[in-house]
Amino acid sequence: MKVLVTGGTGYIGSHTCIQLIEQGHTPVVIDNLCNSKQMVLDRIEQVTGVRPAFMQGDIRDSAFLKRVFTEYAIDSVIHFAGLKAVGESVEKPLKYYDNNVSGTLNLVREMQAANVTSLIFSSSATVYGDPASVPIKEDFPTSATNPYGRSKLIVEECLQDFHHANPDWSITLLRYFNPVGAHESGLLGEDPQGTPNNLLPFVAQVAVGRREKLGVFGNDYDTPDGTGVRDYIHVVDLADGHLAALDKMAHQPGTHIFNLGTGQGNSVLEMVHAFEAAAKRPIPYEIKPRRAGDIAECYADPTYAKATLSWTATRDLQTMVEDTWRWQSKNPNGYA
Amino acid sequence: MKVLVTGGTGYIGSHTCIQLIEQGHTPVVIDNLCNSKQMVLDRIEQVTGVRPAFMQGDIRDSAFLKRVFTEYAIDSVIHFAGLKAVGESVEKPLKYYDNNVSGTLNLVREMQAANVTSLIFSSSATVYGDPASVPIKEDFPTSATNPYGRSKLIVEECLQDFHHANPDWSITLLRYFNPVGAHESGLLGEDPQGTPNNLLPFVAQVAVGRREKLGVFGNDYDTPDGTGVRDYIHVVDLADGHLAALDKMAHQPGTHIFNLGTGQGNSVLEMVHAFEAAAKRPIPYEIKPRRAGDIAECYADPTYAKATLSWTATRDLQTMVEDTWRWQSKNPNGYA
Repeated sequence: MKVLVTGGTGYIGSHTCIQLIEQGHTPVVIDNLCNSKQMVLDRIEQVTGVRPAFMQGDIRDSAFLKRVFTEYAIDSVIHFAGLKAVGESVEKPLKYYDNNVSGTLNLVREMQAANVTSLIFSSSATVYGDPASVPIKEDFPTSATNPYGRSKLIVEECLQDFHHANPDWSITLLRYFNPVGAHESGLLGEDPQGTPNNLLPFVAQVAVGRREKLGVFGNDYDTPDGTGVRDYIHVVDLADGHLAALDKMAHQPGTHIFNLGTGQGNSVLEMVHAFEAAAKRPIPYEIKPRRAGDIAECYADPTYAKATLSWTATRDLQTMVEDTWRWQSKNPNGYA
Repeated sequence: MKVLVTGGTGYIGSHTCIQLIEQGHTPVVIDNLCNSKQMVLDRIEQVTGVRPAFMQGDIRDSAFLKRVFTEYAIDSVIHFAGLKAVGESVEKPLKYYDNNVSGTLNLVREMQAANVTSLIFSSSATVYGDPASVPIKEDFPTSATNPYGRSKLIVEECLQDFHHANPDWSITLLRYFNPVGAHESGLLGEDPQGTPNNLLPFVAQVAVGRREKLGVFGNDYDTPDGTGVRDYIHVVDLADGHLAALDKMAHQPGTHIFNLGTGQGNSVLEMVHAFEAAAKRPIPYEIKPRRAGDIAECYADPTYAKATLSWTATRDLQTMVEDTWRWQSKNPNGYA
């Protein structure tokens, strides 16, 4: 299949491009490069021997999207493009609604104009808000605790309404838990601009000497060691989840919703200690107050994805931290 | 104050322009005329002696909005522009999200660029979904039952997040109940394109001979006569509510939410019989099955608006139907 990958030079997008190529598909990458580097394409080529087609542009630009759909006979779209920093979204909500919501509406309109009716959308476990219990199933109630999360939830709702009116479409909403890790080659990984918003990139930057110490926000949660528990999933497992969704769902009319997680919760301190073992060095950290909006525990019930997509995450915690460390130590300043 | 009125040639927008002019403000009207006629400006001039400034264009067009804000030193924006047909929104949700959500985000961005920080937004009682009880207070839970309602709810949420990040702004969300009636001059009123979506315009078109009979959807609701009960509010009272909000809130930083309703519920058959009395002719009607998504009763608790805005609806049911009939009988084909 010829697959348009929006945000294809980003963290999850780039790893998905590799899996697409390795499984015989043809990715066409678009990205506005606001939070990623074109060099990622070189790395994808190094790993796979194939350089994906690339057009630089923004999903909010209708004329650009028309050119893309005219240039390439796209079969299906995997839509990663979007902003993802929770803190920034609180400061600049309009930017998030514009990029994530208006951008997606624009993409869907241009897909419709081009008669491309198969879409996989990057959603997030954040749409479960503060869940009443764990593990989280797909039919749990949804809510938003910040503008980033709300932008994901709004897009999910708009796409479901859109599907109701266009029942021949295949729309798959993938709710990611906490993506970590890097490609085993050490050539691709997460390269956040500025201060990392997520735990593992921050830990990796401490390990490599770019930052002095880690802040751990709260050690008095009702969890085994008091720190927050999340469902960390290896980015290559996550990419494989997209391939499974593409294989099984791209031609199944419907709105399909899947959790992509391991089903396993790990605490902040477990992650830190696992990383220390992989990097063979201590990670200094400091306990800080809880952050507003953070929840104690969040992990998936992944049985629906397993049953329906025949997909399950296979890479364990050790692989996650080792791959992260390989990427970070080989690329101490990311792609820069 | 110089007030930008988006959707100013529409039903509620045009009546608000009249009240603005009569209270010494200067409306600047923009409208894409997708659901209204430029002739409305002639009628406003006939009533008030003042022809509002007008620029034709779309709120989704940033370049257009930049021209508007450059041309006029706007103090405050009253934002009516939007699509409003529930049934159409189910068929064409993308059109609704694009016009109502992306359009509003675009407007707010251009307001910000022009340093205009005072906004009154046309929301709707539909954001209360199927309320647990009546009368409805502003702090009731919100939800959506169709894409039109969801577009209003999304905009409310986005504006509240935006205000959180921009606390110096004044944002007022006015939740309309069921606007009916017309200007007492008989020169302005509601002029729906195609089949009317709302009760009174349909009744008026039956009365004037444009339609054979009214369909009444359900007479087995748990209401006094079995037909649905709504809070009908005279459009001039509604317009006055905007003026009150402008006077009291335009320079008060905050997100201010008000119900604009009478607090009085009337059934479909009460409205029909009142209209029959005003028009001095029978309105044939037929009982049909309930429509999906319709609720039994919906009426406001208007005490917060009364206490805070010193505003209350003063025009009674008889005035509503008489004014509607005057408009319809003088303009059997609306503005056409």
